[in-house]
Amino acid sequence: MYIPTYADVEAAHARILPYIHRTPVLTSSYINGLAGAELYFKCENFQKAAAFKARGASNAVFGLTEAQAAKGVATHSSGNHGLCLSYAAGRRGIACTVVMPRTAPQAKKDAVRGYGGRVVECEPSTSSREAVFAQVVAETGAEFVHPYNDPRVIAGQATCSRELNEQVPGLDAVIAPIGGGGMISGTCLTLSTIAPGVKVYAGEPEQADDAARSFRAGHIIADDAPETVADGLKVPLKELTWHFVQKHVTDILTVSEDEIIEAMKLIWKRMKIVMEPSSAVPLAAILRNPQVFKGQRVGVIITGGNVDLDKLPWM
Amino acid sequence: MYIPTYADVEAAHARILPYIHRTPVLTSSYINGLAGAELYFKCENFQKAAAFKARGASNAVFGLTEAQAAKGVATHSSGNHGLCLSYAAGRRGIACTVVMPRTAPQAKKDAVRGYGGRVVECEPSTSSREAVFAQVVAETGAEFVHPYNDPRVIAGQATCSRELNEQVPGLDAVIAPIGGGGMISGTCLTLSTIAPGVKVYAGEPEQADDAARSFRAGHIIADDAPETVADGLKVPLKELTWHFVQKHVTDILTVSEDEIIEAMKLIWKRMKIVMEPSSAVPLAAILRNPQVFKGQRVGVIITGGNVDLDKLPWM
Repeated sequence: MYIPTYADVEAAHARILPYIHRTPVLTSSYINGLAGAELYFKCENFQKAAAFKARGASNAVFGLTEAQAAKGVATHSSGNHGLCLSYAAGRRGIACTVVMPRTAPQAKKDAVRGYGGRVVECEPSTSSREAVFAQVVAETGAEFVHPYNDPRVIAGQATCSRELNEQVPGLDAVIAPIGGGGMISGTCLTLSTIAPGVKVYAGEPEQADDAARSFRAGHIIADDAPETVADGLKVPLKELTWHFVQKHVTDILTVSEDEIIEAMKLIWKRMKIVMEPSSAVPLAAILRNPQVFKGQRVGVIITGGNVDLDKLPWM
Repeated sequence: MYIPTYADVEAAHARILPYIHRTPVLTSSYINGLAGAELYFKCENFQKAAAFKARGASNAVFGLTEAQAAKGVATHSSGNHGLCLSYAAGRRGIACTVVMPRTAPQAKKDAVRGYGGRVVECEPSTSSREAVFAQVVAETGAEFVHPYNDPRVIAGQATCSRELNEQVPGLDAVIAPIGGGGMISGTCLTLSTIAPGVKVYAGEPEQADDAARSFRAGHIIADDAPETVADGLKVPLKELTWHFVQKHVTDILTVSEDEIIEAMKLIWKRMKIVMEPSSAVPLAAILRNPQVFKGQRVGVIITGGNVDLDKLPWM
C-alpha cells in the first residue's frame, strides 16, 4: 500500500489546476453567533461537477500515461465520484465507464452521460456490482479509480485544505464529513505537513457511524447498508483512509438525521447556497458540540452541491 | 423632483461601503451554452439582508443628519425593502418602523424584527396602509424612505452596476428585473454615465407587465393587484423611475410564470445558489430571446435571495 506524501499533493495541485476551481470561502455572522466560533466555509459545492471529488478524479485521470489513458478509466459509484471521474475523463478526452445499480436515480445516470461517460448497469447488490465491474475492466483494460482508497485520489482531495490554509491562515481546526474518508485523509495529509497545529475533526451521521466506531475500537468496522439522508457518507473506511484517520484525526463527532437536515436548511437560508445533506454534517456537529469549538477559527468543508431539488429532505 | 446624478452615486458608494458586501460575479459554462452568450451573474443574493435593497436603504439611512436620524426612519413594504431598511437602521442604531399588512408572512415580520425594526400592522388595503403609515409618521416624525421612488435609494442601487462594471469590463448589455424600477433606474444612471455603450434591458413577468406596457405607451400605467410568483415585481413605476426607464432602457422583455420557475430552478441546479423568483426573470428573458443577446457579454443582476424554503415554486 503506497501512502501518498505531501510532495504528491503539490504535484497533484499543479496537475489539476486547469481543471478545477479555486473555490471561495464564505462566512456568515449569523451562524458564527449561533456557534460561538468563527466558521470559514470552503465551498466545494461550487467546484467543477459540484463536488470536491473533481480534485481526486482529475489527479488520477491526468496522471495516467498515454498508454493507460488510451484504455480509459472505470469505477463503480452511484454518487459524486462517478460524476467527477466522468468530468475529468471528458476533459482529457478519454473513455470513462461507471458501473451503477439500475435502481440509481435517473438524474445521476444522466449526469454521468452529460459529461461524456458511459453508464453500465448492475443489480443493486455487491456481488452483481463486482461481477459487472470485473467484466468492464476485462473488456476495456480501463484503469480502476477507486472513489477514495487510492493514493492519487487522496492526494487530489488534499489540495482542498491546501487552498483553505492559504485563504484563511491561522485556523485552529478543520472539520469535514466522513464516509469512506477520502476528504478527511487528504485534509490530514496536508495539514499534518504544512500546519500541524490545526486539529482535524470529522462529522458523521449517527445512522452511519462506522468510522466513529472504528476510531474508538482501533480497527476498521464496516456496516452493511446504513441508511442516512447524508447519502454520500454510507461507505466504510478502507486501509488507506484508515491509516490517516487513526493517525491524525482528533475526534469523530456524530449527529442525528434531524440535526443534519436542520443544519442544511440553516446554511441554505442564511448563506444562500445550495449544498447536499452530507455537507451539512460538520456544521451540525459544531452546533451539537459548541464547547469543542468555542471561540476558535474553524474551517468547514462544504463537500458538494448535488441534490435533487424535487426531493429536498424537509419537503 | 430631484434627479440623482452620478456624483450622488459616488457619494453613496463611499457612504455605504462599510455596510454592504462587494458581491461576487459568478458564471456557468452550462448556462452560457444554453444562452449562446457569456453571462455574468452579479450575486446580490449574497448581499447584506440578502437583497440589493441594502444598498439604497443604507444610503438613505447613513445620509441622514443627526437630527433626522434621532427620529428614525419608516416605510411600508412587505418585501425586501422593509427588511433592508431595518438592517441599515440597525447598523446606525436608529429606530425603524415598517408598516406591513397583517396578512404578510410571519417570516417576513420576524426578519424585520430580527434586524431590530418595529412592525406595525395594517389591513391589506391601500387605504388602511396609508392611514396607518400617516399615523406612524405623525407620531414619530420618522423620515419616510420610499422603496424606490427616492433619489437616495436610486443612487444607492446604482452602486451595484458600478461594481459590476469594474468586475467585468467591456459588457455589451446588462439586464435586471423590473418592478418599481429602483434597480433598473440605478443601472441606467450608472451605465449611461460611465459606460454609455452598454445597453440596459429589463425583464418583467407577463402577469405583472405594467412597466412593459408603460414603456410602449409612453406614460406610466399602474395595475391594481397583479399576481406573479416573482413577488418582488408587483409594484408600479413612479415618476422618478419612469424618468430613467423611458430615457435609457433599450427594451423590456416579458416572460411567463413557467419560464420564471424554470430559469430559477436552472440557476439553483447549475450555479448552486439560492435566489428568489424575481431574480430569475432576467435569465428567463435571455433564454426566451436568444437572438437579442447572441454572442454578447451580458451582466445579469441576481437581485435577492429571500425565499421561503418550505414553499418553493416547484413544490
